[in-house]
Amino acid sequence: MRKIRMGMVGGGQGAFIGGVHRMAAALDGQIELVCGAFSSNAKRSKASGKELYLPSNRVYKNYEEMIKKEKALPEGERMDFVSIVTPNHVHYGPAKMALENGFHVVCDKPLCFDMREAKTLQKLVKKTGLIFALTHNYTGYPMVKQAKEMIKKGKLGKIRKIVVEYPQGWLSTHLEATDQKQAAWRTDPKRSGAAGSMGDIGTHAENLAEYITGLQITELCADLSIFVKGRLLDDDGNVLLRFDNGAKGVLHASQISAGEENDLNIRIYGEKGGLQWRQMEPNTLVVKWLDKPMEVLRTGVGNLYSAAQEATRIPAGHPEGYLEAFANIYKNVAHCIQARIAGKKPKAVYTDYPTVDDGVRGMQFVKKVVESSKKGARWVKI
Amino acid sequence: MRKIRMGMVGGGQGAFIGGVHRMAAALDGQIELVCGAFSSNAKRSKASGKELYLPSNRVYKNYEEMIKKEKALPEGERMDFVSIVTPNHVHYGPAKMALENGFHVVCDKPLCFDMREAKTLQKLVKKTGLIFALTHNYTGYPMVKQAKEMIKKGKLGKIRKIVVEYPQGWLSTHLEATDQKQAAWRTDPKRSGAAGSMGDIGTHAENLAEYITGLQITELCADLSIFVKGRLLDDDGNVLLRFDNGAKGVLHASQISAGEENDLNIRIYGEKGGLQWRQMEPNTLVVKWLDKPMEVLRTGVGNLYSAAQEATRIPAGHPEGYLEAFANIYKNVAHCIQARIAGKKPKAVYTDYPTVDDGVRGMQFVKKVVESSKKGARWVKI
Amino acid sequence: MRKIRMGMVGGGQGAFIGGVHRMAAALDGQIELVCGAFSSNAKRSKASGKELYLPSNRVYKNYEEMIKKEKALPEGERMDFVSIVTPNHVHYGPAKMALENGFHVVCDKPLCFDMREAKTLQKLVKKTGLIFALTHNYTGYPMVKQAKEMIKKGKLGKIRKIVVEYPQGWLSTHLEATDQKQAAWRTDPKRSGAAGSMGDIGTHAENLAEYITGLQITELCADLSIFVKGRLLDDDGNVLLRFDNGAKGVLHASQISAGEENDLNIRIYGEKGGLQWRQMEPNTLVVKWLDKPMEVLRTGVGNLYSAAQEATRIPAGHPEGYLEAFANIYKNVAHCIQARIAGKKPKAVYTDYPTVDDGVRGMQFVKKVVESSKKGARWVKI
Amino acid sequence: MRKIRMGMVGGGQGAFIGGVHRMAAALDGQIELVCGAFSSNAKRSKASGKELYLPSNRVYKNYEEMIKKEKALPEGERMDFVSIVTPNHVHYGPAKMALENGFHVVCDKPLCFDMREAKTLQKLVKKTGLIFALTHNYTGYPMVKQAKEMIKKGKLGKIRKIVVEYPQGWLSTHLEATDQKQAAWRTDPKRSGAAGSMGDIGTHAENLAEYITGLQITELCADLSIFVKGRLLDDDGNVLLRFDNGAKGVLHASQISAGEENDLNIRIYGEKGGLQWRQMEPNTLVVKWLDKPMEVLRTGVGNLYSAAQEATRIPAGHPEGYLEAFANIYKNVAHCIQARIAGKKPKAVYTDYPTVDDGVRGMQFVKKVVESSKKGARWVKI
Repeated sequence: MRKIRMGMVGGGQGAFIGGVHRMAAALDGQIELVCGAFSSNAKRSKASGKELYLPSNRVYKNYEEMIKKEKALPEGERMDFVSIVTPNHVHYGPAKMALENGFHVVCDKPLCFDMREAKTLQKLVKKTGLIFALTHNYTGYPMVKQAKEMIKKGKLGKIRKIVVEYPQGWLSTHLEATDQKQAAWRTDPKRSGAAGSMGDIGTHAENLAEYITGLQITELCADLSIFVKGRLLDDDGNVLLRFDNGAKGVLHASQISAGEENDLNIRIYGEKGGLQWRQMEPNTLVVKWLDKPMEVLRTGVGNLYSAAQEATRIPAGHPEGYLEAFANIYKNVAHCIQARIAGKKPKAVYTDYPTVDDGVRGMQFVKKVVESSKKGARWVKI
Repeated sequence: MRKIRMGMVGGGQGAFIGGVHRMAAALDGQIELVCGAFSSNAKRSKASGKELYLPSNRVYKNYEEMIKKEKALPEGERMDFVSIVTPNHVHYGPAKMALENGFHVVCDKPLCFDMREAKTLQKLVKKTGLIFALTHNYTGYPMVKQAKEMIKKGKLGKIRKIVVEYPQGWLSTHLEATDQKQAAWRTDPKRSGAAGSMGDIGTHAENLAEYITGLQITELCADLSIFVKGRLLDDDGNVLLRFDNGAKGVLHASQISAGEENDLNIRIYGEKGGLQWRQMEPNTLVVKWLDKPMEVLRTGVGNLYSAAQEATRIPAGHPEGYLEAFANIYKNVAHCIQARIAGKKPKAVYTDYPTVDDGVRGMQFVKKVVESSKKGARWVKI
Repeated sequence: MRKIRMGMVGGGQGAFIGGVHRMAAALDGQIELVCGAFSSNAKRSKASGKELYLPSNRVYKNYEEMIKKEKALPEGERMDFVSIVTPNHVHYGPAKMALENGFHVVCDKPLCFDMREAKTLQKLVKKTGLIFALTHNYTGYPMVKQAKEMIKKGKLGKIRKIVVEYPQGWLSTHLEATDQKQAAWRTDPKRSGAAGSMGDIGTHAENLAEYITGLQITELCADLSIFVKGRLLDDDGNVLLRFDNGAKGVLHASQISAGEENDLNIRIYGEKGGLQWRQMEPNTLVVKWLDKPMEVLRTGVGNLYSAAQEATRIPAGHPEGYLEAFANIYKNVAHCIQARIAGKKPKAVYTDYPTVDDGVRGMQFVKKVVESSKKGARWVKI
Repeated sequence: MRKIRMGMVGGGQGAFIGGVHRMAAALDGQIELVCGAFSSNAKRSKASGKELYLPSNRVYKNYEEMIKKEKALPEGERMDFVSIVTPNHVHYGPAKMALENGFHVVCDKPLCFDMREAKTLQKLVKKTGLIFALTHNYTGYPMVKQAKEMIKKGKLGKIRKIVVEYPQGWLSTHLEATDQKQAAWRTDPKRSGAAGSMGDIGTHAENLAEYITGLQITELCADLSIFVKGRLLDDDGNVLLRFDNGAKGVLHASQISAGEENDLNIRIYGEKGGLQWRQMEPNTLVVKWLDKPMEVLRTGVGNLYSAAQEATRIPAGHPEGYLEAFANIYKNVAHCIQARIAGKKPKAVYTDYPTVDDGVRGMQFVKKVVESSKKGARWVKI
């Protein structure tokens, strides 16, 4: 067996998420970065490639060139998959082209710009049979996987209520008016899509709730707001939810919750008990019961489900964080690609990563919250 | 000056909230219990009075007798105010009669059974000029008062978003089918009123949000549920809020959030910062800022506003809790009655207790969430 | 039955602990304050008594007068017990005289000034058979009692290690040089005794450790320090402990741990598990196990031992604090005195309060830490 | 510039810390693993190398072969440094040989087996001028660096008291009697050295305290214990400390604190304030002040010192953990080696990693705690 070879689209100097993807891919020693088109600016792409110690002939001026030239390389050398870490409006192009040319894809979320693009990609993945992973990275945390298993096994009984929150405060001011790159594209309808905070982080909340509970949102009522003067997309949204099993829920996501860092968290209540998980203290899962003391599950302690154990690298009390959870997606993708190369089925535990279907679901969520809000926060079916 | 004399309606053996009111009234040594009509059952009333060391001639068989006979006593002996701690449907009767006979009132929340009763009481308080305090006790906590002052002084800037939650889990099962007294009346539309959890605890959440922010809810969209089979009133509700200054909010209250104790909490975000308070750890107020480290304010530490200081009895690190916050209402009422006796104006800090107007507001909230929910969770103005 | 009548020595205007004792005594409606000698200054005593709504003939100019005159009152009127809330050097006098005249005693800690006094009081209590409660109030918390029961029942297995801490920061500066009354007497060897912080708070730590574990310290090695220039007694101390069952421990208490409030806390480890309790969040008891998830026990939740349940007044999630724990001592004393009046044995649960023996133990601890430290922090037997 | 090339000694299949070192080295894309002698068993070494995708000619049967053969390779190919991740008794051999042959070293802690070895290595590092980093990884956390800077800049005033703790529970049973590899060598005097828990984790605590405060322990009094029957080395130890500026301290480390994971934590109190850091929630630094609210500093929030900022990879609220802190040592070493290759001085911030001198200090600490304890827990100078 050998390391899996990654080509990257986007993630040049100054980008935040590109570095995250590279660290996540590198962590477990299963993947090596072999090429990239790091910027729409060819010069900046070259400079970025050099900083990453890539040979200059594997640093391309754009993704089209990269995919074309890599495809022409011999099997023993060319990249195995493309990692797409560009702003939302530049997901579709490289994803489509990669799939059409036989490359697996890891793509940052949200999947793409709109539902039309999303559906096309979904079909293409189905048709090609290629691996397509979407980095809804928060589902990579061990205790999220533990929570999912607990609910699947009925430990909490039938689920009744779900509260999922994603407050951030970093867009409390008109940051996009400065030259802050992260703020600029996320608040620009041409690059971000129909929604601002709802697309950027609301989709993570939606994905987390559906991933853990195994339920689907069937109706929602969304009240989106723009609080910062001059902003073009929602920077806050409050959403009521109804799920397919009759459960009710609340989802709110915000980038003007002043002083909040990145406090994605979820509480889920069933007939027999409830659980709580917070991304900012991710190694802890609090489980509350009707008639006995609260339990605090911790990564590495006691008898967790194998899904959680497989997603943990080091012993209890040695905190793993965001990059490790992110790396769990890359690790699973690498194992799945290795299995393909070896002509084998991957271990079931490695197939647990978000897919193009989760991406379509997210795009639908974005569409529906925007639609509901535009109607004056009326209920819409999803 | 002398101790203020309290007569109690309700709160006989087996009641929970009656004991709370008595402890709260006793704590500061300003109030003495002198008489009571502790139960609609005359025999149980007598037995309760005996346990409380009251002379038997001051233990009455019902509130009508109590108010009538106490009124006939000489001024140096008769009660100064009535404390009403009965189920919701028995607030109106004694409150009205007490006011009509010149007695001040402390009344448990919600104010009464419906808006018609509420309006009558409001008029009567206005007309008589008597003191009427409603035990929205959570506003009695020092750090709640600190939060209110901070916002009033503009420390957080204009308020944008409010999240207020009140999850409990104790009604996760059909408890009212057993002989649990607390569950029985709270889930009975004839005794509780139009709402279940929304009346019992949702009104606390509404009151807390409006008290701290000084804002008023102008529109709401409520999705109430009955999760437990056989139950007659809502045991869970999710509400979107809009406030009079343009702020948005989420309020959810639940008695089927399995495993939750009594986790009333609030987060408020303004243009400059945010704050967070949790009733279950009430001596702490977390304040988050856009551009500097989070601060953790604690009762007794540093230079808190006088409203918070006056509401604190003991030094930092000696936790005060629910009863102390409750007692702050009684303490303030006692001081106000003493001021009246002395023919003086009370100190401004003592006039900070919830009034009949807060009660009317709460009844309106109950009416509107029920109305909204019945329409299929549509927006209604309040 | 009737309320139990309390006379108070000390606790006049400006005192902190006097008010605490009065609130604690009042909370449960079992005790009434009937008389007092509130200050060594007769005029201030009178003024204090008036503020407390006492008739002027029951406000005495000193404790000698109080005990003498109260004794002369008829049984149906005179006080039942004396509550002593003076600085350490004025515990012995009133305690001795009260016992000699047939009054039960509740006394603030530490018991007295030195071992000689302590032994005399111990003998006197034994001889008279009167009730003598020492307000080591931290053992009044429900979760402390729960912890004690768990260990007694062997849930943690044999105890191996105990870490008990009591950091405060309020004496980080030379506060006694200002007119701060609390600081002045606590740092004065003539009023406080042989130790400063070790007597004031170290004894609480020692008492808590021995109370919960049921073990006794047999040897200690103490390194006491005076960090603030000009101070006369230790303001910090670190102590190694050895217990009678072979367990080892660490105790440190400090009043110069800048920024700390009143963070008494304890961790106890046995062969099977460990537990942790913090006074500043007293309704929580964390229990950790070798091979299963950590449990968080909470007052009012699940099936706690009756010792914990009896010490709790209100349902789960309604935090009780310092005053409630303090009140548990008074409540138990009141029940025990009532039982005596009725000629009955009190319920076993009511006999759980700290006694003169705990006081003697505390004085011994003070003596030994000072002795060890003076020898250059050498081990001494206790 | 190019990636720095690492050769590894130890860390074959089944080892825990080897994987940690590899992930830490890989994370930032600055280092590549090029060769290794992963086990004293040549066959296991080969198998491990294969799993790590190394070419078989760079997988050696022991460290002697590795160093010799790598040295013979051309400069453009051979390893730049050796990473030593073997049990304690096999640090000295490869470290010495690596240094003697011109290779930089990263070595797991404690430095070696005894003081004699330690001194030899220290001299050798001095003589060769090579880079020698010791993985006292906990000093790699951003908030530890922030704390160090704060104290250096006098924010807390003169330091008075230090409490450093390292409780673990995993050796609560006689685990070494099973085939648990980690337990086996750590409890074996022939492989671990003079101390058990004190060497394994006590040295981390000692290092952390001295690193953050910039102070040195000058005297200590240690009470070490073996609680588990049949064990040969200490599994628990309580130590009183005195520092060179007059500060006092407590250090305790334990591997029988049942239920504890890996709870290294430190509290430091100065004249003006105190701070607290816990490894298990490492992105938080609590700072308490004499006269204003507690502040909670968080990685990525506000204006942290550059030492902390440089050690942080991702924005606030995206938790970084143990591996990231560990990686900060490797990252700094890589930058320093790159600077050497380039013939430049490294940026000052990159020179912040633990060195052989810290290692010598740790060995001294081990020697002295053992000496003190053997004397019956008497004070010894260090």
